[in-house]
Amino acid sequence: MKILIINSGSSSIKYQLIEMPANEVICSGMIDRIGLEISNLTFVSTSNKIEESLPIADHKIGLEKIASLLMDEEFGVIISTEEIEAVGHRVVHGGSTFSNTVVITEEVKEKIRQLFDLAPLHNPANLEGIIVASEIFKNAQQVAVFDTAFHQTIPVIAHKYALPNYLLTENKIRLYGFHGTSHKYVSENAIHYLTQNSFSKESKIITIHLGNGCSMTAIKNGKSVDHTLGFGPMNGLIMGTRSGDVDQSIIFYLVNTLGYSLEAVNTMLQKQSGMLGLTGFSDLRDIEKQAENGNVDCQLALAMNAYRIKKYIGSYSAVLNGLDAIIFTAGIGENSSYIRKLVCTDMDYFGIELDLEKNELRSKEIREISTAESKTKVLVIPTNEEIEIANQVFELLVE
Amino acid sequence: MKILIINSGSSSIKYQLIEMPANEVICSGMIDRIGLEISNLTFVSTSNKIEESLPIADHKIGLEKIASLLMDEEFGVIISTEEIEAVGHRVVHGGSTFSNTVVITEEVKEKIRQLFDLAPLHNPANLEGIIVASEIFKNAQQVAVFDTAFHQTIPVIAHKYALPNYLLTENKIRLYGFHGTSHKYVSENAIHYLTQNSFSKESKIITIHLGNGCSMTAIKNGKSVDHTLGFGPMNGLIMGTRSGDVDQSIIFYLVNTLGYSLEAVNTMLQKQSGMLGLTGFSDLRDIEKQAENGNVDCQLALAMNAYRIKKYIGSYSAVLNGLDAIIFTAGIGENSSYIRKLVCTDMDYFGIELDLEKNELRSKEIREISTAESKTKVLVIPTNEEIEIANQVFELLVE
Repeated sequence: MKILIINSGSSSIKYQLIEMPANEVICSGMIDRIGLEISNLTFVSTSNKIEESLPIADHKIGLEKIASLLMDEEFGVIISTEEIEAVGHRVVHGGSTFSNTVVITEEVKEKIRQLFDLAPLHNPANLEGIIVASEIFKNAQQVAVFDTAFHQTIPVIAHKYALPNYLLTENKIRLYGFHGTSHKYVSENAIHYLTQNSFSKESKIITIHLGNGCSMTAIKNGKSVDHTLGFGPMNGLIMGTRSGDVDQSIIFYLVNTLGYSLEAVNTMLQKQSGMLGLTGFSDLRDIEKQAENGNVDCQLALAMNAYRIKKYIGSYSAVLNGLDAIIFTAGIGENSSYIRKLVCTDMDYFGIELDLEKNELRSKEIREISTAESKTKVLVIPTNEEIEIANQVFELLVE
Repeated sequence: MKILIINSGSSSIKYQLIEMPANEVICSGMIDRIGLEISNLTFVSTSNKIEESLPIADHKIGLEKIASLLMDEEFGVIISTEEIEAVGHRVVHGGSTFSNTVVITEEVKEKIRQLFDLAPLHNPANLEGIIVASEIFKNAQQVAVFDTAFHQTIPVIAHKYALPNYLLTENKIRLYGFHGTSHKYVSENAIHYLTQNSFSKESKIITIHLGNGCSMTAIKNGKSVDHTLGFGPMNGLIMGTRSGDVDQSIIFYLVNTLGYSLEAVNTMLQKQSGMLGLTGFSDLRDIEKQAENGNVDCQLALAMNAYRIKKYIGSYSAVLNGLDAIIFTAGIGENSSYIRKLVCTDMDYFGIELDLEKNELRSKEIREISTAESKTKVLVIPTNEEIEIANQVFELLVE
């Protein structure tokens, strides 16, 4: 079964065509700068790599272009759109409505629309992708996989804020969590790995997703029980340009005493804070290079970043009352031995003992980077949200 | 040496007269509702207890009234104001300027004034108390003890936020911490207790101050290294009416999407949230009674409250890379066996094992409520900020 995975952003579309249940990626690519003068388009298959620059006015034209690339006479991978049996859509916010992957109906679309307020940057683009894909891939089942769904198991003790009750009951203000597809994929792989290595199935693990956005999840017996991102995607860990946890009284001070507009504070917390605000750089590789060359701001920012992660490891060990493994994933988690080392230093109270040599090895496979004696396993597991979405779509439709 | 301790609030004055170095409280009391039609005044000595209701227009009149009570012919405890050799003032915010207790000079007053922006509700009242006490107790040395001072040892990795650097360097936005006098007093008592009980002097402890305000401090070898309250007194634990930690994106959502004014959100987070927002009650004793009678909101609120404390115990165990003892203090910490039990349940990963019987005992003394086998000690230590202030004043002036 050929499943097309679509991740629609406000001005971009990422796609992958996957043969299931083989988990074989037939082709992948993206379009960015949709609506601007010139868009960039890529298409990568086992035998071809194509890059084009051309004007693409909207998502409909973008997806039509992708369809025609898939069916291209010269380097195409299918003959007709009818070969695609399902389209799996990443949808960022499923609110409290969606705790599972669902086949998209008119009712589902309406519910995704009702959640626009909770994810104003993402859900409208996701819905646009769904509507357009339904027109182009008429025979395919359209399926929605929600980024928040994995976290719907977080109990009320952890997802409720200490605010007046009506904000939860009437306004649905609670912790939703994000990066769920990644945390689910990585945690399932971790649990599979651990049970193969004679760990009990009753596992207590913490997944650490460090990419553009960063988040951690406490996972008990495969279920998300707590998470660092909350109502929105700003909280918790220090990110590229987002502050993560910050004392909310600072917001009132900036506006009431220093005269900032609330809009400027919002922009600051989302786009000018985090590693960028602390160092002037937003790419972690630059920051690590600078730190190695003696840049004190960069050294401190990396130390603060790791310190925050360590605190959440401790916090979630309390939530789980134990710890079997921590798992690093996503761009930074998979590639930055520097951050992993900082996080795992002086953590022997939690049974964490890093193997410094193994930590430096690079691989695209799941790997254990703790010492043989380490009571708590430290794993690096490459995430793959597209494969996870394809798996969920396949399971929903076939099983 | 007779030291008068003064804690001036915006509409109240609390006072204690203490004989040092005996730590003997000669008398104590308070005035509230200053400036309103009728104020309440109390005066308690070993032999007398007086309550009066009368109009008290301002702090000067209030302190003069206290001075005349101290010298009252019938039940007074001194003959002349000259007997008071020092007045110790609690000052809430010392900023980054004051990391120690200081004798008050014109320069010190000016610096306290410069910190008004950081503590607009407290520092002006504190300074007013200083100015008025200097006039009435002319021969006494005036000394300032800062609530933030104990936390000035918190390293930059923990006191800096992941915001643009200039907010720290130019605007002094950082974690300051509060309740320092209490955390210092209680931690010193705890360390004394632990070393007497064959613990090393190199201690790793967590103090949990649960009163009107609530906060926790990670303390390594006697020094504060991290703390739950930050720039202002809103963050961290769930308090009577304050939310504690909350996703900052909620603030933007309330204003931008739901149409709240920023002022209303600030009021909500400070005065309508926390235990009050979750239950409709702000007094913990009422909430516990309701919970025992089956009120589900109250049960959940108490569980959330304890859950937050547990998470910080885990977090600070990571900061300390170990844990020798946790210490409960202040009104709720000293008296609520209910909360203590919730916090200490399912925490054996941290070596915490509560003795359920000892937990129920009431006493004004320091007491150990963990089992003999508990690797991590659980202590209850009554706080005494006035005695701590008197000690600091005495040490500064005499030693």
